[in-house]
Amino acid sequence: MRVRPLRREDRSDVERLLVSTGMFSAVEIATALELVDAAITSADASGYFVFVLDLSNDPARREVRGYVCFGPTPLTDGTYDLYWIAVERSAQGNGYGRTLLEFVEHAVRERGGRLLLIETSSQDAYGGTIRFYERNGYPLIARIPDFYKPRDDKLVLAKKL
Amino acid sequence: MRVRPLRREDRSDVERLLVSTGMFSAVEIATALELVDAAITSADASGYFVFVLDLSNDPARREVRGYVCFGPTPLTDGTYDLYWIAVERSAQGNGYGRTLLEFVEHAVRERGGRLLLIETSSQDAYGGTIRFYERNGYPLIARIPDFYKPRDDKLVLAKKL
Repeated sequence: MRVRPLRREDRSDVERLLVSTGMFSAVEIATALELVDAAITSADASGYFVFVLDLSNDPARREVRGYVCFGPTPLTDGTYDLYWIAVERSAQGNGYGRTLLEFVEHAVRERGGRLLLIETSSQDAYGGTIRFYERNGYPLIARIPDFYKPRDDKLVLAKKL
Repeated sequence: MRVRPLRREDRSDVERLLVSTGMFSAVEIATALELVDAAITSADASGYFVFVLDLSNDPARREVRGYVCFGPTPLTDGTYDLYWIAVERSAQGNGYGRTLLEFVEHAVRERGGRLLLIETSSQDAYGGTIRFYERNGYPLIARIPDFYKPRDDKLVLAKKL
């Protein structure tokens, strides 16, 4: 298993695994893929870094089961956003999410980052996601009521690196 | 006096008035002008709407003293962000900021918006800005510690429309 930079041919895998989770609307998936496309074109210019979790250790093969997208938060000094993280539904429960999250924390530290932010929804469907972040050291630090829609708040979780 | 859509020839006025405030770094001004350029190219496609406060009522003349940039917050239903608002330093104290803010509230309501968010810095220099928003009905609803840099928090103010 390895976490490696996204390649162009991984795009359909990322789309497939996002759909498999059942967590994202069509608009959300399109938005996630826009960032993937920006990263394919130029990660440094776009400010979006995308990595995949590949079960295969053979460079000639690909078995993509998860992905993560993060980048520096514009106009900040050392703050980063975790924009997207997802593990294919059939591969969940193996610690791959944690592996991806720890990879991001390491990469952000290496780039001089000091704060990693995660924004998510207060909807019940995300309860498992929020518990996952809290277990990994991301307390809830702010809430924007009715952000996504009435009675669907934005939650901001954060870890100091 | 009128608040009207930005035209291409207003760009240098916007740059001048941003500089005049003394509130924004070169990087912040470049970012603000990126959104102006996106709005000039296509407001609807970019999601950035830019209007200027023009003291002249003669369409053949321009006396730009303030501007505002706002737009729908991605992935939300009815939430809008006020991205930038500025009044030329020599023209401050005349209620132009309030005129621009009320214009935005009206425009957002017309587009079906229900929540207007403002993000700003906790730095002392912004104390006047924050009091301006509070006077106009935008209480502080969330704070992200150390967001911009250590000891420089992001403040989120909001008004239900």
